[in-house]
Amino acid sequence: MTTTITSEADAVIAAARGFLGERISVNRAIREQHSRGEDTTTPTLPDAVAFVETTEEVSRLLALCHQHGVAVTPFGAGTSLEGHVNPVRAGISLDLSRMKAVLEVNEEDMDCLIEPGVTRQELNAFLRDKGMFFPVDPGSHCTIGGMCATRASGTNAVRYGTIRENVLGLEVVLADGRVIQTGGRVRKASNGYDLTRLFIGSEGTLGVITKVRLRLHGIPEAMSAAVCQFPTLAAAVETVITVMQSGIPVARIELLDEDQMEACIRYSKLEGFTALPTLFLEFHGTDAGVKEQAESVEAIAADYGASGFAWATDAESRNRLWQARHDAYWAAVNLKPGHRGITTDVCVPISRLAEAVLGAKEKSRESGLTSCIVGHVGDGNFHCLILFPENDPEGLERAWALDRAIVAQGLSLGGTCSGEHGVGLGKREFLEQEHGPEALAVMRGLKATLDPRGIMNPGKMFRN
Amino acid sequence: MTTTITSEADAVIAAARGFLGERISVNRAIREQHSRGEDTTTPTLPDAVAFVETTEEVSRLLALCHQHGVAVTPFGAGTSLEGHVNPVRAGISLDLSRMKAVLEVNEEDMDCLIEPGVTRQELNAFLRDKGMFFPVDPGSHCTIGGMCATRASGTNAVRYGTIRENVLGLEVVLADGRVIQTGGRVRKASNGYDLTRLFIGSEGTLGVITKVRLRLHGIPEAMSAAVCQFPTLAAAVETVITVMQSGIPVARIELLDEDQMEACIRYSKLEGFTALPTLFLEFHGTDAGVKEQAESVEAIAADYGASGFAWATDAESRNRLWQARHDAYWAAVNLKPGHRGITTDVCVPISRLAEAVLGAKEKSRESGLTSCIVGHVGDGNFHCLILFPENDPEGLERAWALDRAIVAQGLSLGGTCSGEHGVGLGKREFLEQEHGPEALAVMRGLKATLDPRGIMNPGKMFRN
Repeated sequence: MTTTITSEADAVIAAARGFLGERISVNRAIREQHSRGEDTTTPTLPDAVAFVETTEEVSRLLALCHQHGVAVTPFGAGTSLEGHVNPVRAGISLDLSRMKAVLEVNEEDMDCLIEPGVTRQELNAFLRDKGMFFPVDPGSHCTIGGMCATRASGTNAVRYGTIRENVLGLEVVLADGRVIQTGGRVRKASNGYDLTRLFIGSEGTLGVITKVRLRLHGIPEAMSAAVCQFPTLAAAVETVITVMQSGIPVARIELLDEDQMEACIRYSKLEGFTALPTLFLEFHGTDAGVKEQAESVEAIAADYGASGFAWATDAESRNRLWQARHDAYWAAVNLKPGHRGITTDVCVPISRLAEAVLGAKEKSRESGLTSCIVGHVGDGNFHCLILFPENDPEGLERAWALDRAIVAQGLSLGGTCSGEHGVGLGKREFLEQEHGPEALAVMRGLKATLDPRGIMNPGKMFRN
Repeated sequence: MTTTITSEADAVIAAARGFLGERISVNRAIREQHSRGEDTTTPTLPDAVAFVETTEEVSRLLALCHQHGVAVTPFGAGTSLEGHVNPVRAGISLDLSRMKAVLEVNEEDMDCLIEPGVTRQELNAFLRDKGMFFPVDPGSHCTIGGMCATRASGTNAVRYGTIRENVLGLEVVLADGRVIQTGGRVRKASNGYDLTRLFIGSEGTLGVITKVRLRLHGIPEAMSAAVCQFPTLAAAVETVITVMQSGIPVARIELLDEDQMEACIRYSKLEGFTALPTLFLEFHGTDAGVKEQAESVEAIAADYGASGFAWATDAESRNRLWQARHDAYWAAVNLKPGHRGITTDVCVPISRLAEAVLGAKEKSRESGLTSCIVGHVGDGNFHCLILFPENDPEGLERAWALDRAIVAQGLSLGGTCSGEHGVGLGKREFLEQEHGPEALAVMRGLKATLDPRGIMNPGKMFRN
């Protein structure tokens, strides 16, 4: 781990102390907490961690870092799986988790303005008595700023879109400290370049998001969940494809393979299920609409040999089910004591989903490693959590080789290396292959324009 | 009109003749056809019009123009209302209307790959027997390339999104002739900067779109249209707000004010209606779902004093109704013989819609000019078509003053100067006011990065 503080970083820290006081810290334990996310990269210590509380502070700090050429790595909840928060060139870890204000909620327009450190769970708790919710739900307690930066999605994206479709505007501090507003309060506009979408998914490499205006949705009149189990993975995937092509507006349609189901049954004590390929579904709408959707899906699933189409209309059973789904990662990691996991994030056109999922499973078997598959399969996105023995470099190497093979297969099927986790450190090698050298050169050109000194989350997204 | 051909343009034309032959034309009538769109700007003759047929030709031509510093103004169907296709700095008018191939249709994934000269009507005719449709429907026979360039929407956007949400990827020729691919075939991705969204709405100022991959939608099992009329404009607008807040998934909800209805009744011979503020609605879904949606809206409308909730479930009646809606512009222009029209494109948060629409009507009355209002009001977007006597400079000036006043009011209500028509020449003065100088500087920076010689549709979007 790098521990040398450069004189430039020293200068920034000394100057920042003038307006941040004790909120810029060089304490080793705090720096270690900010040395990586939930990934398997080698941790790097930042020179200091700045706990900012206002846009003004972010602006002043960035202007200083820009002046001194010191790296800035934004940090939210630290849940990145791709090394986004690992400060590979040391400098300042910019912790935005204290910027937690809900600044506005407009019930008539169903939008809100929040600071980036608010988590989706906190926002939904705040909104609950207003009859609205925010649907984008990655499987962790991540901040909404981080979700914007990584173009996150989750289980509801098939119905409500990803964060890209649910952000109306942003406030962004640029590398040199300038503050811009993007987008606005309107639902649509043709009023210049789409700066909002440029920053969504830019992974902290173009600027720091300090405010987010989100689109909200009304809590549906009726909701119902269902689970059905299939004799084979292929049957489950074919069911998904048919449901999507039928235009049934499912709110969620999640696949868990037999290994993942075994893990969930154990970890979440799911009763009445067997370790078979399984779909978790949710329907939103009116009472009659929800019933109609569920019956249509049940009929399709039956055609593919599904058994045990179990319903859950009461909130408690639904929540237990979705809690189990959200805990799938931890369930899988706990499947084999003494193991850790790395996870793929391939997304393919839905016509290639069966090939991609079955191929991933086959490659896992060949590698001799255990892997569990969960997926937001309505969007063609699935994760293969590969388990490997902790403190076993050879096991980690095999796991990475399997990860690479699954991604390569996804790309060959017209897919992407990342549906929702982002590029970070982990997926940089695939970016040129996916976009081609000319498009990648355009991305680098945009980066150089907005961050000419290369201080914003350096080392991420692009290989040097 | 400029008719001098500069020596640089001469050099481009001579060189381009080598690969375009007769398809680069200096014929005066052809240049006049390409001197403006459906706007009221002063026409400018391009030095030549190039009828390109392949990406390779666009690339070679742009490389030439880049080398010689000659302006390029992309031209599709010439339907722009904001002066986008007016070649204000002469040079080459790049006519893409012959690039009309439908290159791929993937029924399983519900996507297609097309060339930019395909119109939405042509695409939908092509798709009809495949059970799919493309929902984005501006009120003209515009090309899909032009729709991408202006971030177009239309009557279905409230349910299906604008073109922004319905484009999966693009092929773009950059100013210097390089060709890039953006996006891909997947529904979602977190794999680098969102170049697709950067070019959507860039109005030909960053590059030329030569291929478009579109998301398609299944033709709904059931569709039903409805019309209801209101005693006041306020009652109609309040109905829209309540419907949207209730989360009823209307496919279309369009407002026509009393003057527009009078125009439509005359022009489209709509029988059984009176010249009152009116909503046109459409519902998509299953038989039961459509019925349920329509009943919910009918109940809300009744609360606001609506009369004559007329249904149209058969395709013929529905088409007659929507044809009348699509012809609203021509109906309004024909309302007063010897008049022409200019149209506003304000979009506001829906909570401010009543104020914005009623304010626009009031300002029209005060100005002494006739204006007709139609609107995609589910999105908060409405057009005020202002009629003024042809060949009357004073009348045109008054019409522009009214247009400005309506836009200024929209901005003061948290709205935008353009919901879907774009900036072009007509809305440039509002851009800084909407985004602020810092964000506008970022847009200019992106422009300079991608088009360093400033040849791409110069004079548009930004004031000098």
